[in-house]
Amino acid sequence: MSDLDRALERADANHEASLERLFAWLKIPSISTDPAYRHGCREAADWLKRELGGLGFSASARETPGHPIVLGSMLKPSAPTVLFYGHYDVQPVDPLEKWTTPPFEPRIIEGGGKKVVVARGSSDDKGQVMTFVEACRAWLETTGSLPLGVTIMIEGEEECGSTNLPAFLEEAKDELAAQVALVCDTTMWAEGKPAITSSLRGLIYEEVTVIAADRDLHSGMYGGAARNPLHVLSAIVAALHDESGRVTVAGFYDGVPETPEEVREQWRGLGLDADAFLKPIGLAIPAGESDRMIIEQIQSRPTCDVNGMWGGYTGAGAKTVIASEAHAKISFRLVGDQDPAAVRDAFRAFVRERLPADCRVSFEGHKGSRAIRVPFYSPALSKAGAALADEWGVAPVTIGSGGSIPVVGDFKRTLGLDTLLVGFALDEDQIHSPNEKYDLESFRKGTRSWIRILAALAS
Amino acid sequence: MSDLDRALERADANHEASLERLFAWLKIPSISTDPAYRHGCREAADWLKRELGGLGFSASARETPGHPIVLGSMLKPSAPTVLFYGHYDVQPVDPLEKWTTPPFEPRIIEGGGKKVVVARGSSDDKGQVMTFVEACRAWLETTGSLPLGVTIMIEGEEECGSTNLPAFLEEAKDELAAQVALVCDTTMWAEGKPAITSSLRGLIYEEVTVIAADRDLHSGMYGGAARNPLHVLSAIVAALHDESGRVTVAGFYDGVPETPEEVREQWRGLGLDADAFLKPIGLAIPAGESDRMIIEQIQSRPTCDVNGMWGGYTGAGAKTVIASEAHAKISFRLVGDQDPAAVRDAFRAFVRERLPADCRVSFEGHKGSRAIRVPFYSPALSKAGAALADEWGVAPVTIGSGGSIPVVGDFKRTLGLDTLLVGFALDEDQIHSPNEKYDLESFRKGTRSWIRILAALAS
Repeated sequence: MSDLDRALERADANHEASLERLFAWLKIPSISTDPAYRHGCREAADWLKRELGGLGFSASARETPGHPIVLGSMLKPSAPTVLFYGHYDVQPVDPLEKWTTPPFEPRIIEGGGKKVVVARGSSDDKGQVMTFVEACRAWLETTGSLPLGVTIMIEGEEECGSTNLPAFLEEAKDELAAQVALVCDTTMWAEGKPAITSSLRGLIYEEVTVIAADRDLHSGMYGGAARNPLHVLSAIVAALHDESGRVTVAGFYDGVPETPEEVREQWRGLGLDADAFLKPIGLAIPAGESDRMIIEQIQSRPTCDVNGMWGGYTGAGAKTVIASEAHAKISFRLVGDQDPAAVRDAFRAFVRERLPADCRVSFEGHKGSRAIRVPFYSPALSKAGAALADEWGVAPVTIGSGGSIPVVGDFKRTLGLDTLLVGFALDEDQIHSPNEKYDLESFRKGTRSWIRILAALAS
Repeated sequence: MSDLDRALERADANHEASLERLFAWLKIPSISTDPAYRHGCREAADWLKRELGGLGFSASARETPGHPIVLGSMLKPSAPTVLFYGHYDVQPVDPLEKWTTPPFEPRIIEGGGKKVVVARGSSDDKGQVMTFVEACRAWLETTGSLPLGVTIMIEGEEECGSTNLPAFLEEAKDELAAQVALVCDTTMWAEGKPAITSSLRGLIYEEVTVIAADRDLHSGMYGGAARNPLHVLSAIVAALHDESGRVTVAGFYDGVPETPEEVREQWRGLGLDADAFLKPIGLAIPAGESDRMIIEQIQSRPTCDVNGMWGGYTGAGAKTVIASEAHAKISFRLVGDQDPAAVRDAFRAFVRERLPADCRVSFEGHKGSRAIRVPFYSPALSKAGAALADEWGVAPVTIGSGGSIPVVGDFKRTLGLDTLLVGFALDEDQIHSPNEKYDLESFRKGTRSWIRILAALAS
């Protein structure tokens, strides 16, 4: 039996125990955007540091001005090194009432011939990180070493913009030296069909506050004469898209590349129509640019979405108030060479132009990242692709991703590394939503996939 | 010294003690719209029942399916009877962080040569109710009786639509028999200038929920293709008014009477311009129908306002979610013969017409009342007007009110009573807002005004 086969067999034998380890990590509420969970973030970092230390990694939790970054290192003389990246922080859990089980009490739920782990972070990203850690465990427990050098870097601020990561990359440049970066924070093409992600949309995220009167007003007394900031903000939001679904912010499409016709042709062949993509979430009509395929709308075209909006009375019953302020969180997904700073400026100008002269507006910018494209063809990608084909019995698809993983750009800029994005989550895993889940098959075969990829990259 | 003078003098002597009584009542958090304060409502009702009982009224707290109605009665053989109405329930207090003192810990605050009581309910309506109760006390403590029969009815559901009042009026018809109704829940024209309110706008209040996908979605994965209900709702809200400020709901202006030119002329004479009305609240540009004077916008014209709106992520930081649902509380102020049911139907049709085919909408109707007009000229109004002129040294203005007091219509329909609306609150009292207040002069001279009005109506 080859070393590879023994490692794969060991991973299968470890399956139950590896789930227990994952559950222990999932129980720690490491919500990075909410200061109330600062302690949970540290606990999740410490848990992983101990886990990696126990496997023989030289492991530490590095302080940052925000949440710590966990670093684990096991180099191999005269072998190449891979830098694996993931994150231990998770999204907030609200609306809590929509969870069928508590978000930080992971459960295995069976149904439709499948078993899934339900918990916040199960898919994004603790479950995915653990596929790699368990792959290392399987190698270490069978051969006593890894096929090649591995540095694991797991941060705690991915869900709030990775604010402190670029400075850390700069600072720890030497420790992070590698030949290729691996990221496990993306999805498969579909159940049973693996994918390697080759492009990622960028993101800017703005919080807008429109202020009208200097206090909340009684609508009986002032209604009609006093400007209602919720009307103003609604009109601004309504104006962000035209009837064809195009974003109307001036210059927004500057730097957006046209997808080559042969690629669009290839995408057409995937047969992803509105029914296939939208029916599972209870929708039917694509909401994006009406002259674009749905796969373009979600992968290669930039978008704008209101992620949250609030103002006035939102409690039970009726209160006849005219609010003083109205708020919205608005984000833009960017592609190609769109410049986050230029889009931000144009958006702010767009809002200001539509503001009545006696209203004020304030902006808070949360995130900004350019879109990322990783090379379509590279030796690492070919080797990983072959390893995935061996595991899943079907060749992986090379896809673009609608989401943003800004660190990929930082890896290139600061460390000179290309990144291989391989993930095992599924579109229906409800990441960032209530009842986030991770398929047990994603976890099991994901672990096995990394065992194979490590062997392939070492060759 | 006349009985009237002795009663007025007693009221002044009672001033400090009467404030203490008011404070005791203000300390009870009787928020009727929030079930969490059910106990506070009962406590406020019981407090008033004891207060009236102590004055010699035959007093009781009558059960309803909602909050109790306090009834106090002291009839006088062969004298007319007045039915006084007010409410002990108060508005919710949020945003709590904008209060400079806790809403249920009343304080006297001095500034700009004035003293005011700051507390939720100080102006709307506990402080106003107490002007009448203290007026009765002054009469009772000096002459041992009231100038005429008085029935006091104070409800606990005015802020949530007076749901159970109509049935109670029907049931207690005989006990409530009177010659005229008095309501103290309105404002003066300005500081030092009393007013009698002769018209009230009606109200409908709708809660709208737009539902798109069957779960919250990750905007990276679905953004562009999945319908965002906050965009849909914003477009609907933005469409409710045209550029001239007119409400665009079909048939909305049916039944809206044109104000006679001589009345508009009179209103012009009041000199209420944008600066005078809007500057004190930090605004400058009237937001209503651009071809109407500001006094029309707030008194004689119907309006539409979003009172609350929410959806998606509203916590700290950035969450890239596309919400499943978006919500708005939307109310319409009605005038003349506008039919609340017809406006509600037209509004719901307006929303449905603008709904993408794969979205759903649900409505919850909170309130519905027609606009009210009380006679411009009546013996009671003349007598009360003269009494107010005696107290304030200036004749009262007869005005329309932008607010809604549906009970006035019920008094007419069920009890056959015309209503005299006299109130001492000021526009700047921030009712329904943080830091609600009541001027000590409103309280003191309001009490004295009722002493005079009771004497005048008895004559």
